[in-house]
Amino acid sequence: MIPIVLFVAPSGTGKTTLVEGVIRCLKERGFRVGALKHTSHRLKFDHEGADSWRFTRAGAQLTVISSPDELALVQKTEMELPLENIVEKYFRDVDILLVEGYKAGRRAKIEVFRDVKGAGLISRGGQNDPDLVAVASDVELDLDVPVLPLDDPDAVADFIIERFLS
Amino acid sequence: MIPIVLFVAPSGTGKTTLVEGVIRCLKERGFRVGALKHTSHRLKFDHEGADSWRFTRAGAQLTVISSPDELALVQKTEMELPLENIVEKYFRDVDILLVEGYKAGRRAKIEVFRDVKGAGLISRGGQNDPDLVAVASDVELDLDVPVLPLDDPDAVADFIIERFLS
Repeated sequence: MIPIVLFVAPSGTGKTTLVEGVIRCLKERGFRVGALKHTSHRLKFDHEGADSWRFTRAGAQLTVISSPDELALVQKTEMELPLENIVEKYFRDVDILLVEGYKAGRRAKIEVFRDVKGAGLISRGGQNDPDLVAVASDVELDLDVPVLPLDDPDAVADFIIERFLS
Repeated sequence: MIPIVLFVAPSGTGKTTLVEGVIRCLKERGFRVGALKHTSHRLKFDHEGADSWRFTRAGAQLTVISSPDELALVQKTEMELPLENIVEKYFRDVDILLVEGYKAGRRAKIEVFRDVKGAGLISRGGQNDPDLVAVASDVELDLDVPVLPLDDPDAVADFIIERFLS
């Protein structure tokens, strides 16, 4: 099983930017990184009129476009696929998988925290989330897990390497 | 093994439009259709600035975006993946796969033919292609395989159902 790390946060916290930065750092250090994002929106490229996706719009259940340096796929689904199914089906050839948006998943989590009035940690609310392994924060916090600097993806990548890839 | 049909033609023949129409007809008749297209161009949705693909641009080898009704994937590849690999990895849950653009593949082929000055059939050039099963043409042709009307995707779908799905 490849290691999986969930990044959780309310929207507007800068989660995507942090994940993006961590991907870049891990790749620079030679790791093959997979990324998985959950969205409740319709996927954009399916609406831009790109020739490539005419088959999807015509009713293909699964369309693959293959080019010399990348392959893209769109699969129609009848229900939201569980994290486990997606990992098993698609993420076999990576060293680590970073996930944005499966808050309820029972996997190691890094919470992304930005100090705004009235906000508390999701994972240290009513009850402690046992899957929390670190918090990336823009302020100092006194916690039972490491607190990493939100604006330093290298530091977050270091933590992930030490914890999951060493 | 699911049946696979390659649509071959020079560009500008209306191949994509025909495949699109055939997908629509087959889906209307209850078949689960997969579509595979080869392109030598860079994939468009990766360049439109969609948030979804920031992870790909940051260096993720494989990015999956999951939404309630579809899943999309982009995989970086070091070389062009062979048809067989793509079929085996991705197209397990469809009834038939329609393919555009793998001319050299040794699979059943339908040639799409439009009568323009000086043009001949690709599959009946110097030597006969044994994989040719039909031609979709805008003119009558005298051939050893069925000639189907180019502008009638229903007729092409009928042929495919009788030949591969009955």
